[in-house]
Amino acid sequence: MAQLRIALAQVNPVVGDLEGNCRLVVETAHEAAVAGAHLAVFPEMVVTGYPVEDLALRNSFVSASVKAVHALAARLAEEGLGELPVVVGFLNRREGVGARFGQPAGAPQNSAALLHGGEVRLTSAKHHLPNYGVFDEFRNFVPGDTLPVVRVRGADIAFAICEDLWQEGGPVTAVRAARAGMLITLNGSPYERAKDDVRLELCQRRARETGAAVGYVNMTGGQDELVFEGDSLIVDADGELVARAPQFTDALLVTDLRLPDAPDPAPEAAEADGIRIVRHTVSARPVAPYDPEPPLVAPRPDPLSDTGEVYRALVTGLRDYVRKNGFRSVLVALSGGIDSALTATIAVDALGAENVHGLLLPSKYSSDHSITDAEELAARQGVRTRTLAVQPVVDAFGDAVALDGLAAENLQARVRGTLLMSLSNQEGHLVLATGNKSELATGYSTLYGDSVGGYAPIKDCWKTLVWELSEWRNAQARAEGAAPPIPENSITKPPSAELRPDQLDTDSLPDYDLLDTLLDAYIGTDKGLRELVHDGFDPALVERVIRLVDRAEYKRRQYPPGPKISSRNLGRDRRLPITNRWTP
Amino acid sequence: MAQLRIALAQVNPVVGDLEGNCRLVVETAHEAAVAGAHLAVFPEMVVTGYPVEDLALRNSFVSASVKAVHALAARLAEEGLGELPVVVGFLNRREGVGARFGQPAGAPQNSAALLHGGEVRLTSAKHHLPNYGVFDEFRNFVPGDTLPVVRVRGADIAFAICEDLWQEGGPVTAVRAARAGMLITLNGSPYERAKDDVRLELCQRRARETGAAVGYVNMTGGQDELVFEGDSLIVDADGELVARAPQFTDALLVTDLRLPDAPDPAPEAAEADGIRIVRHTVSARPVAPYDPEPPLVAPRPDPLSDTGEVYRALVTGLRDYVRKNGFRSVLVALSGGIDSALTATIAVDALGAENVHGLLLPSKYSSDHSITDAEELAARQGVRTRTLAVQPVVDAFGDAVALDGLAAENLQARVRGTLLMSLSNQEGHLVLATGNKSELATGYSTLYGDSVGGYAPIKDCWKTLVWELSEWRNAQARAEGAAPPIPENSITKPPSAELRPDQLDTDSLPDYDLLDTLLDAYIGTDKGLRELVHDGFDPALVERVIRLVDRAEYKRRQYPPGPKISSRNLGRDRRLPITNRWTP
Repeated sequence: MAQLRIALAQVNPVVGDLEGNCRLVVETAHEAAVAGAHLAVFPEMVVTGYPVEDLALRNSFVSASVKAVHALAARLAEEGLGELPVVVGFLNRREGVGARFGQPAGAPQNSAALLHGGEVRLTSAKHHLPNYGVFDEFRNFVPGDTLPVVRVRGADIAFAICEDLWQEGGPVTAVRAARAGMLITLNGSPYERAKDDVRLELCQRRARETGAAVGYVNMTGGQDELVFEGDSLIVDADGELVARAPQFTDALLVTDLRLPDAPDPAPEAAEADGIRIVRHTVSARPVAPYDPEPPLVAPRPDPLSDTGEVYRALVTGLRDYVRKNGFRSVLVALSGGIDSALTATIAVDALGAENVHGLLLPSKYSSDHSITDAEELAARQGVRTRTLAVQPVVDAFGDAVALDGLAAENLQARVRGTLLMSLSNQEGHLVLATGNKSELATGYSTLYGDSVGGYAPIKDCWKTLVWELSEWRNAQARAEGAAPPIPENSITKPPSAELRPDQLDTDSLPDYDLLDTLLDAYIGTDKGLRELVHDGFDPALVERVIRLVDRAEYKRRQYPPGPKISSRNLGRDRRLPITNRWTP
Repeated sequence: MAQLRIALAQVNPVVGDLEGNCRLVVETAHEAAVAGAHLAVFPEMVVTGYPVEDLALRNSFVSASVKAVHALAARLAEEGLGELPVVVGFLNRREGVGARFGQPAGAPQNSAALLHGGEVRLTSAKHHLPNYGVFDEFRNFVPGDTLPVVRVRGADIAFAICEDLWQEGGPVTAVRAARAGMLITLNGSPYERAKDDVRLELCQRRARETGAAVGYVNMTGGQDELVFEGDSLIVDADGELVARAPQFTDALLVTDLRLPDAPDPAPEAAEADGIRIVRHTVSARPVAPYDPEPPLVAPRPDPLSDTGEVYRALVTGLRDYVRKNGFRSVLVALSGGIDSALTATIAVDALGAENVHGLLLPSKYSSDHSITDAEELAARQGVRTRTLAVQPVVDAFGDAVALDGLAAENLQARVRGTLLMSLSNQEGHLVLATGNKSELATGYSTLYGDSVGGYAPIKDCWKTLVWELSEWRNAQARAEGAAPPIPENSITKPPSAELRPDQLDTDSLPDYDLLDTLLDAYIGTDKGLRELVHDGFDPALVERVIRLVDRAEYKRRQYPPGPKISSRNLGRDRRLPITNRWTP
């Protein structure tokens, strides 16, 4: 068996920051070298950040990426890292392909490059292009058709990119024919609730299918609506977990492995399953035997309670959205309710209390507890607040135009929205929208009112999850001996928009336990009316809720982005017509 | 030669209105039968409307479409139309395909059905799935692999769907092997400026390649951001134009053709280019000889001046967006400037003056002519107006929070936005946003201010095109002996946002002739900085404009939808990251 020390670098690149991303690779490669690694592997598209979306169709961007990866190879060598083979994801183009109607302009490819001895030794492109959910890769890339197998210190290691591990056939199938001892995939795999369990099982299955150990390196951090959790891991050829990095934290997972000696001469199979096997030797001579370090297996949160995992995903998403867009502080309207309380708490955990500004905007329908609960929240967390009176402005509008009913309710929300945006413009804070997924789904919000802002941290959380997260966060504080950050009254009181006297959410909506279950079945599983009724929901309720959801499409499109924690979020990748006369 | 009278039905379905769309097919089939047609062909997805986007992934929707098409076949027969073969586009599913990771759920297909004798005789699915620009069909459909050839009155007619005509290979290539006398494609082909010329040339080229006459039937009307122009046509096997329907109008194009006698027995080729040829005979016996009617070739607008064509596309888009979303009237803020003047004029042409409500919202920075020009516009077109004072509300905000600079400017725009939305809520009008493409591109607008509304009629028109369209509309009125609808002063005065004293657009932006040329090169052709400088643009200007464009991504996402008239519009199908540190 050949011994090998492999470094999987789960890092957090920024889309478009080619210089910063390459610097990050160099710094991390230094760490890998110091740790004695024989190979360092970085995530999918680490050079450009991921996902680049239609930037891939801009020729000058592809050229910049190709240039950057060559410069990176040279720089690694200049800094004394030329002997360490480094594999990075980058944006490449397929050369020698003419323009063809329907093909992405310039034939861009989602690629991996092997850097060694100051040069790019080998490139290979993703074969399976995901084109569902958040992914539109048929739009942006042309597929690759090779499996690179690199001989490092006498072991053969194959590389593939993300989706190639998930779909049947293609490069992963070719691994067995190539008789590689290990397969390492470069990933930009967005966080979804409980996906870590699926990911481990997938790696275990692929290991058994290919007869090779499987390494999985994933990025970290937030990019627009996506959150990457890391969770890089290695399983051996039997599918046993060997090493696993923590979630939501940058990490260098350095692991000593024993891999089969590379067959000599190399196997003849040059093609399998339509995939061309491309070989390159970095070093054929095995490492002298050494005592392996014990592998790291980062402790996992209790798999039965993933609430804390979701919470950390929301914190990560918010932190990076603010930072990567050049903001330092956020502004949140504190209503005393649970949505704004949780949003502010996430913001404090992400940015520190000194960067979170609370705004109290009571109107004449605001209850006393709306102010006291908001002040209590701010006091517990050290958030500075200001109070602005909404009523005089509402009255000034009332002098200009006579409004009643829903128009008058919406007006209050819009005055609040304008005050938030005015302070944002004046002082430079990013405004956080505090709507939850149940509201977004049913359209229970005001366009240009409570929906203003640059980011919406809990937009993919059902109301019932908002309560769970709040209770989890308080329990976590108690467990750490700290005071719970969220006032209990905000958690326990009945929710209300407070836009008219004695208003409660339950005036317009069913109880949230029932509503969320129904919404999750309609949106999360695409069930139609008949199936939902068959599942036991009241037909009149199903009809009413479906109509609410379908009619709110326009509002949802105008809502700010927010971190996705489910495959069926209500963000930009939910693609439905605005004009739609069909109700299932 | 076999004689045949073919009816191409360019109609305007509504997404999701299966019942209404099927009624439209039956009514139009009646007309075709009365006109003596031997075959009637409808557009792509006429049963469901197009595009259905992710509705295709909802099993109950696919089932409803399949059920509707069978019911349609039966109803046509019940109404005495059973002998007329009718071809319609509908949403189908590929049967016998198991779920596969990465494959659209339920294996939906964008299909065509031949209805005859009360039954669905044949179905076939689109082979080439467009996945660029406004299209995401890899996300929603699985491809088909058949070419249906139907024998009607002794002539063999092949059918294909939209993209299959545009891309090389596939069904169209199989037409020659099938020795069909004619190919008819069902289309949902969105309007783009000057695309009608491209479309005709494509049909001519395919006719020569396949040796078959080519019929092209396209839908009409607006659906969300898309506009369909009709422009259905027929070319003979030599590529000569035989018949052509008008643009932007529903029409039944009935044309007598002489087609080659169908080979007897049918050719043996059962497969070509990976496409299975599927044959069905409706009627083998030719029609008794008759004197053909002269074909219709609708007159085209002057090809050198397509401004009027764009104008009609904007009117069509607005009319259908309002109608299909259940609105009857619109509300427009009239500033006296050219953008609001053109928007109101389009609205009057689309909906009638009685359904257009003008709102004058002068502030202390508004010039005298801003009011007089707006009133003049309203008077010329018979639009009712109201004037609401913005300043007292702005002052009330000023009492609540101290604002200056850009924050104070934005506040005025947001007060206007809130007044518009309040009246919309109170009275039920759809608010039209009046921003143009140059503003959207550079971010020269206020979030939740001038950007509020449900639809933005001129968002895909550069400012220079806004002037052209206004002048064209006035010239058209003069040519018809009517008074020009747009005050000349609105066209000729220098543009200003009037948010501070003596403000002009040129304070912040270069001259629009130069700006629009540069923007069109950057956005329309994806050129990078170096190429733009090479084209002669000033490097400092290019850098500044690129930065403006890239930073305005978030604002653009929040902008209301509007009709697309170019392949590089700034709507929802421009997919770029918000967080992007790259400037080319």
